[in-house]
Amino acid sequence: MSFQIPRGTQDILPGEVEKWQFIENTARDLCNRYQYKEIRTPIFEHTELFSRGVGESTDIVQKEMYTFLDKKGRSITLRPEGTASTVRSFVEKKLYANPSQPTKLYYIGPMFRYERPQTGRYRQFVQFGIEALGSNDPAIDAEVISLAMSLYQSLGLKSLKLVINSLGDGDSRNAHRQALIEHFEPRIGEFCSDCQNRLKQNPLRILDCKKDRDHELMKTAPSILEFLNEESKIYFNKVQQYLTANGISFEVDPGLVRGLDYYNHTAFEIMSNAEGFGAITTLCGGGRYNGLAQEIGGPETPGIGFALSIERLLAALEAEGVNLPISSDIDCYIVTMGDQAKDRAVSLLFEMRNAGLRAEKDYEDKKMKAQFKAADRHHAKYVAVLGDDELEKNVIAVKNMETGSQEEIAIDQLITYLKQQTI
Amino acid sequence: MSFQIPRGTQDILPGEVEKWQFIENTARDLCNRYQYKEIRTPIFEHTELFSRGVGESTDIVQKEMYTFLDKKGRSITLRPEGTASTVRSFVEKKLYANPSQPTKLYYIGPMFRYERPQTGRYRQFVQFGIEALGSNDPAIDAEVISLAMSLYQSLGLKSLKLVINSLGDGDSRNAHRQALIEHFEPRIGEFCSDCQNRLKQNPLRILDCKKDRDHELMKTAPSILEFLNEESKIYFNKVQQYLTANGISFEVDPGLVRGLDYYNHTAFEIMSNAEGFGAITTLCGGGRYNGLAQEIGGPETPGIGFALSIERLLAALEAEGVNLPISSDIDCYIVTMGDQAKDRAVSLLFEMRNAGLRAEKDYEDKKMKAQFKAADRHHAKYVAVLGDDELEKNVIAVKNMETGSQEEIAIDQLITYLKQQTI
Repeated sequence: MSFQIPRGTQDILPGEVEKWQFIENTARDLCNRYQYKEIRTPIFEHTELFSRGVGESTDIVQKEMYTFLDKKGRSITLRPEGTASTVRSFVEKKLYANPSQPTKLYYIGPMFRYERPQTGRYRQFVQFGIEALGSNDPAIDAEVISLAMSLYQSLGLKSLKLVINSLGDGDSRNAHRQALIEHFEPRIGEFCSDCQNRLKQNPLRILDCKKDRDHELMKTAPSILEFLNEESKIYFNKVQQYLTANGISFEVDPGLVRGLDYYNHTAFEIMSNAEGFGAITTLCGGGRYNGLAQEIGGPETPGIGFALSIERLLAALEAEGVNLPISSDIDCYIVTMGDQAKDRAVSLLFEMRNAGLRAEKDYEDKKMKAQFKAADRHHAKYVAVLGDDELEKNVIAVKNMETGSQEEIAIDQLITYLKQQTI
Repeated sequence: MSFQIPRGTQDILPGEVEKWQFIENTARDLCNRYQYKEIRTPIFEHTELFSRGVGESTDIVQKEMYTFLDKKGRSITLRPEGTASTVRSFVEKKLYANPSQPTKLYYIGPMFRYERPQTGRYRQFVQFGIEALGSNDPAIDAEVISLAMSLYQSLGLKSLKLVINSLGDGDSRNAHRQALIEHFEPRIGEFCSDCQNRLKQNPLRILDCKKDRDHELMKTAPSILEFLNEESKIYFNKVQQYLTANGISFEVDPGLVRGLDYYNHTAFEIMSNAEGFGAITTLCGGGRYNGLAQEIGGPETPGIGFALSIERLLAALEAEGVNLPISSDIDCYIVTMGDQAKDRAVSLLFEMRNAGLRAEKDYEDKKMKAQFKAADRHHAKYVAVLGDDELEKNVIAVKNMETGSQEEIAIDQLITYLKQQTI
């Protein structure tokens, strides 16, 4: 019997994992510059958090959650996204009481959705996301969008498209909602049953419907932008002004909507339009959710954030043929000949690593030639050759693998020598 | 209604998370020097993997697993430890076929055990572990132990105790097993029912029993060390010789055993004996498991590794009063006065961050004095003050917060100026 990985999940192995590390380090460094601090919430939460925080009517909650009962019979769910947990922690741990506001947070970690596995879509996937809680300044909206764009750009992506929209404040949304009902109601019988239900509950979500997207009423539906009140217009204009000042190009797409009530003002998506990436595909989505903290029991708190999948980011890098600058070389490989030299190499290796050098040796009793091959596979900058003869004289031969030049030095000078050469 | 974190789990928040980042970075850097590469396996696996790989008779499998059925009725378990998944991946992805052997891997990530929550013990906790698969060289045993010790020492822990033992090879274990049966059998009626079952199944585990640990036969039980055959003795001596050469002190404790059949040769534990840490407490456990890969369907492959909990490591640091060298300062905080200055600061901030500087501003329309306070809370090295007046002259005032000295410079020189000062 041999064991297999669960369907829809993947092992990330050496050779591939270095890309993940590089992307995560880049994201962490960027967050540090922008002063977003990491938060780590548990892998699972009480199911009700997601029903409430992600939305009872969403596909995620209705179909895609890994939900189970723990040994005490409590309903537990593997987190399908990061915002609900982050805001839960913000409320429960009273981060709003901290004098430094807004609270700027980021997370990187696995999320879980039970979907049909397909290329680039996994049941366990990794999201990087940020949330800024406690400020209603449009400069924060621009900052959040700019951080996402900076991540993609600094990794080398070029074929990016940023789309933004405003959902306005509550009043604007209500006016728009009324207009949508008036627009669709006379011919709602021509729409799918889901849309018929949405008409009164949440007509905005009709615009998102995949079945009815070609219906002629879709193209002529009233745009939210016509219903923005003065305040919402000023807000949206400021966001655009700041993005432009940051040199970030964008398109306004009034069709970019979010169905849930606690979303308002800015919504945005970043897409890749690289050839070979298929249709234009979303890499990152985000927006304002001023109603969410209150929805899950906290004080009224403005919030905005985004989430992006590392898997999609990797796919976009691949589509654009970007090679991340990952190096896998080591400083020194020790080749030994004879039993005493082999023993001495163990502690020599330990000293080298203690001194901060990346160093390796053979653990399979290979012949000298095979040890040199192994040094090549490790991309060793230097090979140190130690035989029982050299050991007796307390010397070691050091070969520069790039130039081929070789020197014999005292064993106790090896680390100093290598540090001079490799730094 | 407000939402709470699941019992036995924790949020790791800014202020605390920096310690985790520091420890993980130290571990990753150490692994890089020692040439252990990261592997990331899924958060959950098929339940059978752990029944087989961790051991059907263990407390972990019997009582502590988060096991549930997925939507297709497959039994899935949140991983309780990292070795079984790592070896599963090694076998399934045929890493043994790679010309570079041994395969040296590390993992850092959450593990899950349903235990009674208590101080320092969580249902979700983070383990760092390494595994070296494919070598039977005692130098690898010494390397694995040395890496763990180096991690603790490089973080500043001093009150450490390393205990090692050998379980020998199969023949040695069988001889010991026979001697244990002969030792306990005449008086097995005085032992608990678990031990009575263990007598024939696995008498080694009697030595681990918490209920019977004070029974007089425990002290006089035959030691495995008396039963090591010549090969096993030579192996164990080599491990000790290498540790000594690395300057690592240790004690040999013949009572340190592992019940499962696939463990053999080297076993070790690292404990903290810091005052205030309570009784001597295990920080890290590891050992050889030459039978595991075969147990889960792979080729016969020697293996050795360790696992340690980051939570316990943090507790040990706290008990010894070690402060990790974590800095949370930023390079520059921009204080603004007037609407135009405020707007200009948005893009200035963006440029600074793009240039690699950690920079921040206010997003709450604070007065100047409050902005300076915020700069203090961010431990800003420099504060740049921009008013509408300065903006008109294209200058900005830069104050060194350590020395108090102030200069007025051209706005477009700000980044160059700060980079010269802060690097």
